[in-house]
Amino acid sequence: MGLVLGDFVSSISPYRSTVIVHPQTHRFTEALVLQSGLSLPAYELVYETYGTLNAQRSNAVLICHALNASHHVAGVYTDAQGQIKPRSEGWWDNMIGPGKPLDTNRFFVIGVNNLGSCFGSTGPTHINPATGDAWGADFPVVTVEDWVNAQARLLDALGITQLAAVMGGSLGGMQTLSWTLQYPKRVRHAVVVASAPNLTAENIAFNEVARRAIVTDPDFHEGHYLRVHTKPKRGLRIARMIGHITYLSDDVMNEKFGRRLRALETAVADRDVAALERLAYHYTTTGVEFEIESYLRYQGDKFSEYFDANTYLLITRALDYFDPARAHQGHLAQALSVAQARFLVISFTTDWRFSPARSREIVRALLHNQRPVSYAEIDAPHGHDAFLLDDPRYLAAVRAYFDHTVAPEVL
Amino acid sequence: MGLVLGDFVSSISPYRSTVIVHPQTHRFTEALVLQSGLSLPAYELVYETYGTLNAQRSNAVLICHALNASHHVAGVYTDAQGQIKPRSEGWWDNMIGPGKPLDTNRFFVIGVNNLGSCFGSTGPTHINPATGDAWGADFPVVTVEDWVNAQARLLDALGITQLAAVMGGSLGGMQTLSWTLQYPKRVRHAVVVASAPNLTAENIAFNEVARRAIVTDPDFHEGHYLRVHTKPKRGLRIARMIGHITYLSDDVMNEKFGRRLRALETAVADRDVAALERLAYHYTTTGVEFEIESYLRYQGDKFSEYFDANTYLLITRALDYFDPARAHQGHLAQALSVAQARFLVISFTTDWRFSPARSREIVRALLHNQRPVSYAEIDAPHGHDAFLLDDPRYLAAVRAYFDHTVAPEVL
Repeated sequence: MGLVLGDFVSSISPYRSTVIVHPQTHRFTEALVLQSGLSLPAYELVYETYGTLNAQRSNAVLICHALNASHHVAGVYTDAQGQIKPRSEGWWDNMIGPGKPLDTNRFFVIGVNNLGSCFGSTGPTHINPATGDAWGADFPVVTVEDWVNAQARLLDALGITQLAAVMGGSLGGMQTLSWTLQYPKRVRHAVVVASAPNLTAENIAFNEVARRAIVTDPDFHEGHYLRVHTKPKRGLRIARMIGHITYLSDDVMNEKFGRRLRALETAVADRDVAALERLAYHYTTTGVEFEIESYLRYQGDKFSEYFDANTYLLITRALDYFDPARAHQGHLAQALSVAQARFLVISFTTDWRFSPARSREIVRALLHNQRPVSYAEIDAPHGHDAFLLDDPRYLAAVRAYFDHTVAPEVL
Repeated sequence: MGLVLGDFVSSISPYRSTVIVHPQTHRFTEALVLQSGLSLPAYELVYETYGTLNAQRSNAVLICHALNASHHVAGVYTDAQGQIKPRSEGWWDNMIGPGKPLDTNRFFVIGVNNLGSCFGSTGPTHINPATGDAWGADFPVVTVEDWVNAQARLLDALGITQLAAVMGGSLGGMQTLSWTLQYPKRVRHAVVVASAPNLTAENIAFNEVARRAIVTDPDFHEGHYLRVHTKPKRGLRIARMIGHITYLSDDVMNEKFGRRLRALETAVADRDVAALERLAYHYTTTGVEFEIESYLRYQGDKFSEYFDANTYLLITRALDYFDPARAHQGHLAQALSVAQARFLVISFTTDWRFSPARSREIVRALLHNQRPVSYAEIDAPHGHDAFLLDDPRYLAAVRAYFDHTVAPEVL
């Protein structure tokens, strides 16, 4: 069953972990029928676990990841010499771990990498058994519902019938919501953070521009770039830059970067007074002038090195397609009427990608069905990114919910 | 002097013109020293005029254009046979013309194309006299201040010492503001619409992504694509798609497109009931699924055919650089203290590119200097695009200002 725990080493900071974790892989040999009608034959899911599954198997919490995240939710990795790898903390390590808001001393937490990803689970960079070559653009389109079905099979393999909770932010929140609709009896609690019941036209528009940048990159080769040993890095850079703009609020961008010139930052760093004195615009259309440009280029370059372009297309499309109300002529309350979970919904005031208004739509639809739902609208300055950050009110809301609402029922 | 008027033909609608106009060109042989320190040797400005300059030369109104607009502000063009060209109305034809809010029966209106443009005035597609080849990327960086200086020289050539008003929206509003600072005695009134005293980090970020898309297009050839008879259309498409998203409000995008599927639109247009019945997602990452995608692709394709990439870089950079408070340690009120004009400032509630908050900064800085300023914040749903549209309250505010405040002083 492979329920190996992370070794607890010590707790240096409330937000940084030294719990050492190891990813595991489960191979599924039964084909998964996808929403598109296509099937994925055999496939693998990579996952990690934190904490201990109790004897009643009632304390499991599944974490669903967003666009460019993975199964590596919490803890750190070690190298071959057993040394902790620097900056190897999981993406929600401030939220999940011993004594943290989702306390792995009490809960058994599972992080799973979704199908179509480039971080381990079967995806476009893996071999298509039908051709012996990488899937590339032939990897089937996967949806939020497909991911939830695959996650449910992993829980079957782990012997977990019912989850204490499912939790996710952004696209992870969509999976969380979908869990309560696809497997209502298997979810006691759903924690939906910075999410939405579907994408707006503007959200789809940003995704589409990012996809066009990738697809029209001459190195895309109709999605079979691996065959020619290249990748569409130009397109990935643009996609990531667009993403970063939409993750941050206008306010936090002004606070972090404002109109500060890159040359000013460099001069200050070098304590170069002469440079500061002659500081002026460089009058360039292609060079870096402002600090924000340097930041975006750096983020774009970094992303283009490690992320797979076909995965980016698949994941943005999964976002576009998610729309549980669609099968109910747009009536979200009707769509959510099958849910049996109790909900915690959280939004952030400056999140313009998944605005509080979209979270309130979910809350209203749940209330319409007399579902128990707690809603926290956090007045945070950081935009959509806030769901990954250390806002104390946000972390306290999650902690209180797990401590006082989830734990008493399942522990 | 070439003050030929548009022939007034007839007024079919209050918003659509049949005033026939002809662009004119003025060649300047004295070099223009630019803010960057570089000089532009001889150059041409293309312009149009509407209405009649009165004997006192006191009724001239200069219109400054925004990113992808031109000197063709109002009226229509005719073909070689004298027939009116369809859809040849100027970009502010709903605002300017006989009997319109800015009434050319009373005012003499001048539209001028800026340096660096691709619509007639000297720009990157023109011949660099030093090389005999197109300027391309060697065209000097031009700023809002440079444009205003060039416009002032055109007014000199037209024999106009003082303008009744300068008016512009967006980047045109920045030029208008700059006019009141560079030539305070030459401007009686300034009408600044949907503008800002500088760009925010988010604005610069969007511009930078658009520029990176262009510059990293393999067809960019370091800005000398004309030499190899190509143009970076991929990059221009992406740039335009990003632009379009930021011109519209989230609300109007939802209203116009929402999550409607492209296939649905086609089926309805074809009255194809069978197609409607089997309507479903196509599960594609590269094809068009939603109506908004089709709209953005169309806009991107169209733009990439007619717009010059180097011009796009220059104009977005002029936006980035504009910052009159910069020479005053960020104190806008201090920067605006030299202005002598009376102001009308207009913003639109759903404009997130140049939000009302930015217009209010201008208003506050003017009030701090005891400048007379009228401010209208129009509750319009259309986002930044609203400044080009037919909102009756907006058009009425402009009409009232010109009729009751500008006209009595100058007519």
